[in-house]
Amino acid sequence: MHAFDKAIQLEPMAEGIFRAHTSAHYANQIGPFGGITAATLLNAVLQHPQRIGIPVTLTVNYAAAVAAGEFTLVARPVRTGRSTQHWTVEATQEGAVVTTATAVTAVRRETWCGSCTAPPRELPPPEFIPRLSGPGAPIWFANYDMRSVYGGYPAVENLPGQPAEPREQDSRSAAWIRDLPARPLDFASLTALCDAFYPRVFVKRRAIMPASTISLTVYFHADEFQLARQGEQFLLGVAEGVHYRHGFFDQRAELWGAGQQLLASTHQVMFFRE
Amino acid sequence: MHAFDKAIQLEPMAEGIFRAHTSAHYANQIGPFGGITAATLLNAVLQHPQRIGIPVTLTVNYAAAVAAGEFTLVARPVRTGRSTQHWTVEATQEGAVVTTATAVTAVRRETWCGSCTAPPRELPPPEFIPRLSGPGAPIWFANYDMRSVYGGYPAVENLPGQPAEPREQDSRSAAWIRDLPARPLDFASLTALCDAFYPRVFVKRRAIMPASTISLTVYFHADEFQLARQGEQFLLGVAEGVHYRHGFFDQRAELWGAGQQLLASTHQVMFFRE
Repeated sequence: MHAFDKAIQLEPMAEGIFRAHTSAHYANQIGPFGGITAATLLNAVLQHPQRIGIPVTLTVNYAAAVAAGEFTLVARPVRTGRSTQHWTVEATQEGAVVTTATAVTAVRRETWCGSCTAPPRELPPPEFIPRLSGPGAPIWFANYDMRSVYGGYPAVENLPGQPAEPREQDSRSAAWIRDLPARPLDFASLTALCDAFYPRVFVKRRAIMPASTISLTVYFHADEFQLARQGEQFLLGVAEGVHYRHGFFDQRAELWGAGQQLLASTHQVMFFRE
Repeated sequence: MHAFDKAIQLEPMAEGIFRAHTSAHYANQIGPFGGITAATLLNAVLQHPQRIGIPVTLTVNYAAAVAAGEFTLVARPVRTGRSTQHWTVEATQEGAVVTTATAVTAVRRETWCGSCTAPPRELPPPEFIPRLSGPGAPIWFANYDMRSVYGGYPAVENLPGQPAEPREQDSRSAAWIRDLPARPLDFASLTALCDAFYPRVFVKRRAIMPASTISLTVYFHADEFQLARQGEQFLLGVAEGVHYRHGFFDQRAELWGAGQQLLASTHQVMFFRE
C-alpha cells in the first residue's frame, strides 16, 4: 500500500463520521503537510455514502497544527441539488477544531471547453532534470519527485537570520512533480499536489523563513477520465506569488497534465514571519 | 442610510446568531447578488463580540438561491489563537442551508511588504469613461458605478440562443468601480466588489448565458488605514478567466486602490449553461 493511501485512510464510525490518523511519512516542521490534511478531508467527502458527483472545489482552513495521532472528521452534505452538492467538513482532536473545509461536488456534463491560460512551452522534460532534494527539506517532501525547471528553492546558504540574496526576484516557478514512488493520480493526490509548492516568499526573497498555509482552495478541472489518462505521469506545476503584506501573502498555481490539460488551479493564503 | 448598509444589516438574536433580510435593491436574476450575500456573511463575523483582528480570507459557497425575505446566520469562532481566528458561518432559511462560509481574521502586524503583481498602467481615468449600463443589467448593478476600460460586457445583440460573435477573445477586463452613490470603502463593501465582475464566459465567448457563482474566495490585503485612505475613490478591478470545462469555470481578479495599492485578490468558480 502506498504511503499516501495509508496517510489518507479513514475508518468509518457512523454516517459521515470518520477516524483518521496522522502519518509520520507526511510530517512537516509543525504538524502534518497541509496537502495531506486537505486530501484526508476531501477523502471524507469522497467516502461519504450520500455523495453525488465529483469534486468541483475544496477550501481547507488550517485552524491549528494537527497533533500526531488520531483525529475525527465529520463530513456533512449541507445541501444537495439535482446535480450539485455542498459540503462542510470539520476535523477535531479532543473536541477542539483543528481544520475546517467546505467543498462542492457535481455531476459534470459535456459542454464547450476553453482556457484563458496555457502552460509554459518547450520546457526540458523531467528526465533531464535532477530531483529536488536537500538537507533543509521537510519529511513529507520525500514522498514527491519534484524537478525544478525555474524558480527553484533558495540556496541553503540563505538560512533564517542571515541576509537574503540582495535582489528580490519574481516568484514564478515551474516544476515537474509526481508522487514518489509513482502512483496513479486521483482527486485526493491531485489535492495534495496543489499544496506542494514551497512558499512564494522563499522564492521572492531568496530566503527561508517560517511560513505556513492558512487557507487553501482547489478548483478541479479534471474528471475521472482525465485522471485515469494521466496515470503516473509527471504533472507540470506552475506557481506564482500575488501580494505580501503585514504577515500574510497569497499565491496561486496551476497543475497541468499530459496533453496540456489543466487538471487543477489553486490559490492559497499563507502566514509568514521574518 | 446607504442601500448597501441596509442590505447587510444584522439583528443580533443571541451570541453569534443574527437575523438578516434580503434587499430588493441587490436582487439578481435568481436570488440576491452573490456579493451582497458574501458581505452579509462577513458582517456576521465583523459584528461578533468575540472577534479578534481583521479579515484575512473569506470563502463563501452558494448552496442555493436565497429566497426573498429573512434568513438566519450563525457565526462561530471555531478556533482562536494568539493573533489568528478561524470562523464558520452558516445561513439558513426555514432550517435549510442556503449559504456557507469560512473566514480567517488576524491581528496584522508590520512586516516587509511586496508584490508580484501590478495594475495595468496609463489607463484613462474614470472621468473620461461613461458608466456601464444597459437593458440587460441585473437590478443590483444599479448600485455600482462601473466604467469599463477594456474587456467590456458583450453587446446586447449576443443574446442566449443566438450565435456568439465568431472569434473567442481573451477574457481579461479592467474597469473602474465604486458604490453608487459613492460610499466609504470598508471590508464588507470590498467583499461585495470582489463579486461584481461579470462572468468571464461572457467575455471569452462574447455571449450572455446562464451563469452563477458556486464558491467565492477573497484574500484581503488592505487594513483599516488603507480602507480609510481609499474612502469613496474609484477602485480599479482587473479580472480574467482561467479554465472552462464541463459546466464550470474559474476566474480571478484583483482590486486596486489609490496609490497602486492592492486591496484584495479574489478567485471564484462559476457554473454555466450553454
